[in-house]
Amino acid sequence: MYSAWILSIGNELLIGRVVNTNAAWLARRLTVLGYRVMRIVAVPDVPEEIAEVVRASLGRGVRALISTGGLGPTPDDITAEALALALGRRLRLDVEAYEMVRSKYSEGGYAMTPEREKMAWLPEGSRPLPNPIGTAPGIFVEVGETLLFALPGVPREMEAMYEGHVEPILRARGPNLHFAERSLRVVGVPEADLSRLIREAMRMSDKVYVKSHPRGHEVRGPVVEVHIYASAERREDAEDAVARVEGFLRDSLGGHVEGA
Amino acid sequence: MYSAWILSIGNELLIGRVVNTNAAWLARRLTVLGYRVMRIVAVPDVPEEIAEVVRASLGRGVRALISTGGLGPTPDDITAEALALALGRRLRLDVEAYEMVRSKYSEGGYAMTPEREKMAWLPEGSRPLPNPIGTAPGIFVEVGETLLFALPGVPREMEAMYEGHVEPILRARGPNLHFAERSLRVVGVPEADLSRLIREAMRMSDKVYVKSHPRGHEVRGPVVEVHIYASAERREDAEDAVARVEGFLRDSLGGHVEGA
Repeated sequence: MYSAWILSIGNELLIGRVVNTNAAWLARRLTVLGYRVMRIVAVPDVPEEIAEVVRASLGRGVRALISTGGLGPTPDDITAEALALALGRRLRLDVEAYEMVRSKYSEGGYAMTPEREKMAWLPEGSRPLPNPIGTAPGIFVEVGETLLFALPGVPREMEAMYEGHVEPILRARGPNLHFAERSLRVVGVPEADLSRLIREAMRMSDKVYVKSHPRGHEVRGPVVEVHIYASAERREDAEDAVARVEGFLRDSLGGHVEGA
Repeated sequence: MYSAWILSIGNELLIGRVVNTNAAWLARRLTVLGYRVMRIVAVPDVPEEIAEVVRASLGRGVRALISTGGLGPTPDDITAEALALALGRRLRLDVEAYEMVRSKYSEGGYAMTPEREKMAWLPEGSRPLPNPIGTAPGIFVEVGETLLFALPGVPREMEAMYEGHVEPILRARGPNLHFAERSLRVVGVPEADLSRLIREAMRMSDKVYVKSHPRGHEVRGPVVEVHIYASAERREDAEDAVARVEGFLRDSLGGHVEGA
C-alpha cells in the first residue's frame, strides 16, 4: 500500500484561527494519485513536536510525507531545523536554495539578510524545490522508502509547488492507480436502515469504499448522502466498481434515491 | 500546562472530501478556555488507528482529548469500539444511552434495531452525553489525568453537545485562563524585516505569542498580518499583555501599520 501522511505546521491551526484547507487539498490530490492518506497531523511551531511526527512516519514506512508551513524567514519558521532534528542530520547552506532566495529578493531590490539566508539552510542530503510565487524554497529528501516534502503554508505557493515539483515525483514513484467516485442522495430511509445494504455493497469489491453521511434530521426527515469511491490500476476498473455498487444500491432502494 | 488534543475520525477527511472545520472550531473554543491545543490528528475509520492516537495522548498526560465522528449506527462508526480497544475495556450496553437513543427513534415512530442499539454500547466506566439534535449520544470517560470526550461528526450536533456538556466540565476542571488577541496589518515592510521586532516583542511577556502571516507578495508589495495573542489568569492581564505588544509594534513600525 502506498500510504501518505500530511503534517500541517503552525500555531494558527492549533488556536483555531485558520481552518486547515491545505490538508484537505493535499489529501484529495494524493488520493486521486492512488495514495492512501492514513493520517493528517497538525502541530504547533515546536521543533520536537514536528520531529516526533516525522520520525513516527519514517518508523512505519510511510511512502510519502508532505508538510506545510514553517519555511519562511521569521523565528517561528522552524521546519528545516525540525527536519534536521528528526533525521539526525545537520543543516547546511544549500547553494541552489541560496540562489533561489537571493534572486527573488534582488528582483524587489532587497539585499540578503541573515533571516533571508536562513531559508536556504536545508538538512544535509535534501534538495530545494523552487517556489514560483513566494520566496521560501521547499525541501525534498528521501529517507529509506519515504519521500519527504516540506512546502510553504501559503495555499497558492503550496499548490503551485505541489503541482510543479511534488506531484511529478509522486506519480513517477507511486502506485499509478485511478480513482472514481459517485454520490447518491437517499431520502426517506433512516441511516441505520442503510447500514446493512452498505455492508453488503462493500463486499462486492475490495476496491470500493461506501460511506453514508446524514444530511437531514434522521428521525423526522431522513436524508442521507451515500458516497461511493474506488481506486484501481485501470481507470475502467475503478469506474466499473463504482457503477456496480451504485446499481446495486439503486436497485435496492428504488424511489428513495434522488437524482439521475 | 493544560494541554489538549483533537482527534478527527473519518475517511472523508483523509480523502479530502471534507475540510476539517470541526477541529478549527474546537481548537478555538479550547484555546479561549486556556487549554493549549498541542495536536490535531485526523485518522480513517480504522479502530487500531484511532486507538493508537488515544493511547499516545494518555501516555503523555494530555488533559483533554476530544474526538469527533464515528458515533452513528453504520458499520463504519467504530469510535466506541476503538475507545474500548485503546482503554483495554469492554463495551457494555449503557441503560441511560439506550433510553436516549430509543426515545429519539420513538419520536419519529421508528423501532429499535441492532444498528440503533449499537449507539448505546459504551466502554465500561464511561457515561453518555445527550445529543439534543441527532440520535447518537456522546461519550465521556476519565482516564487518570485525562478527560476524554467523543462527539459526533455532524457540526451542529458536535457544537451543541460541546457547549451543553463538554465545556462546563472543561471549565470546571481547567486552567480558568482568559484569552485576548489583536491583529495588525503591516504594509511595505518585508516579513523578514519584521522578524527581529517580533522576537523582541515576544520577550516582553511569556503570556504573549506573536506570529506573522504574509498576505501579499512579499517582494513586490509586502503585506504582513501580525497576530498577537495572550492568555492569563485575569482577563485584564491578557488584554494588557496584548496591548503592550501592540503599542511596541506600532511605535516601532510607525506608518507601516494599517488601521486604527
